Amino acid sequence: MPGHIGIVGAGLVGAGWTIVFARAGEQVRVYDAAAAIRDNFMAVVGQQLDDLKRYDLVDDPAAILARIQVCDNLAAAVQGARFIQESVLEQVAVKQEISAAIGPLLGAGAIVGSSTSGIPGSAFTEGAANRERFLVTHPVNPPYLVPVVEVVPAPWTAQDAMDGAMALMAGVGQSPVLVRREIEGFILNRLQGVLLREAWALFEAGYASTADIDKTVSEGLGLRWSFMGPFETIDLNAPGGVADYAERLGPLYHAIQKSRTDPQPWSGDLIDRVDGERRRALAMDDLGARRNWRDRRLMALAAHKAGQE
Amino acid sequence: MPGHIGIVGAGLVGAGWTIVFARAGEQVRVYDAAAAIRDNFMAVVGQQLDDLKRYDLVDDPAAILARIQVCDNLAAAVQGARFIQESVLEQVAVKQEISAAIGPLLGAGAIVGSSTSGIPGSAFTEGAANRERFLVTHPVNPPYLVPVVEVVPAPWTAQDAMDGAMALMAGVGQSPVLVRREIEGFILNRLQGVLLREAWALFEAGYASTADIDKTVSEGLGLRWSFMGPFETIDLNAPGGVADYAERLGPLYHAIQKSRTDPQPWSGDLIDRVDGERRRALAMDDLGARRNWRDRRLMALAAHKAGQE
Repeated sequence: MPGHIGIVGAGLVGAGWTIVFARAGEQVRVYDAAAAIRDNFMAVVGQQLDDLKRYDLVDDPAAILARIQVCDNLAAAVQGARFIQESVLEQVAVKQEISAAIGPLLGAGAIVGSSTSGIPGSAFTEGAANRERFLVTHPVNPPYLVPVVEVVPAPWTAQDAMDGAMALMAGVGQSPVLVRREIEGFILNRLQGVLLREAWALFEAGYASTADIDKTVSEGLGLRWSFMGPFETIDLNAPGGVADYAERLGPLYHAIQKSRTDPQPWSGDLIDRVDGERRRALAMDDLGARRNWRDRRLMALAAHKAGQE
Repeated sequence: MPGHIGIVGAGLVGAGWTIVFARAGEQVRVYDAAAAIRDNFMAVVGQQLDDLKRYDLVDDPAAILARIQVCDNLAAAVQGARFIQESVLEQVAVKQEISAAIGPLLGAGAIVGSSTSGIPGSAFTEGAANRERFLVTHPVNPPYLVPVVEVVPAPWTAQDAMDGAMALMAGVGQSPVLVRREIEGFILNRLQGVLLREAWALFEAGYASTADIDKTVSEGLGLRWSFMGPFETIDLNAPGGVADYAERLGPLYHAIQKSRTDPQPWSGDLIDRVDGERRRALAMDDLGARRNWRDRRLMALAAHKAGQE
């Protein structure tokens, strides 16, 4: 199918998506309503590509940059595109407005994916022209290092739009996950959310420090999960596979769940205590440097995983 | 502090612990009640050391093997040991019996850690002689590749036994986590348990396949978690750190938790459906080969992590 990729909203998320598509050989046209963002965009992407090059995660930054064009109006980015990735501010009104603006510009067969991490597509695409072409394609930042994409239809999304989005994401090297219908938090943030709730509850009751709870994951649970999901992990962890595992461990996990049936909001005091431990471990002024460390680790991990069978 | 390391129970878990300690330069004396396990023990450990050598995770398998001695009676393994790692069958009566047998053999200052993954130490050490020297040191398999160890006191465990176990584990290259008092599932299995419950519930309600839920972790959530814990992850994921993150995402996670306040056991039908998807993805006959793949991936990941800052 001919046509370029349109990127609407060119902040951190839009820049990440631009790299995903341009790295895969797609022509990409980018639009953001803010002139300052448009003016800086190529420099931001160039910097990220240089970092990727250092980890051998891209071959030729200049060739990738040559496939990217920044546009000063929405129509130039959207018209003629076969897929548009929308990454504007995470607010319903803002998403509604941009969806309404994109809808009438769509060519036949075009698909619009929203990067929203929490708002179901139905909350902002219902009134859009061609609303059956809209869906959610939720990435993790940065998408060129963390390949999962949650693909979620609104009730009116056409099946061929879903199929097209899944195929496109796989084609550009992402790992699309089909979420069959809308649910709050989709899958990734629901899984993260329940683990965080238990982690916070254990800390609140004084069982362990935030640092030790972190270590339980970073030096334990998280190792397998960086290359196998939770179902495969338990399938391999009992002689007779997952059914055997469910027999053995199901009652323990049920009991744990039964101990958590009265969820309370995280109190201000609890947040202060967590924040206090974290700020003693890492001063606010050092957050930026640590984020750079995290991104280098993600790059090194991506390079490592690419070399495995 | 002088004294060797005693290993009691020399199956898969005991063999893993033996490698941890002998790799770190400790003299290790191993006992298992089953003659067949004792007779095969050095061959099993030798094979694992050869695998580790291939990934440059040990230098000199022969030197490590030379520090290991298999004993044909419990006293020979325990007497004179400064630390004993107990890894017998995961049944209360069996753990009670071995604890009762070990207690009278302990020298002054010796510590006994149990590998139990689910039984609190108080359930099997209450009646043992020197019960204040007993605690839980819960590993993940294999401990020479997955360094986390949950160190958990019974109500009668002496503080210096806890301190000694924490220091020993750190000294031999593990990552000890202090769990301040007993709780069902400790920390690691509680975190795994809540994530699994949500994964199973999403599958049960038809939101996604087991394969796609797995991908959400293995190509998404699990990447950061293989080198940072959940607290650090969210601390770096909002401009103002974890307090800022809690303000933004806390309400979503609270809402997710509120949707899961009536936990049911996994039904036989649900287990059949999960098992069905897994067995179509991986035949029962292929489980063993896939476990070997997992272990190679864990070794490669350990080598990768060792090379990072």
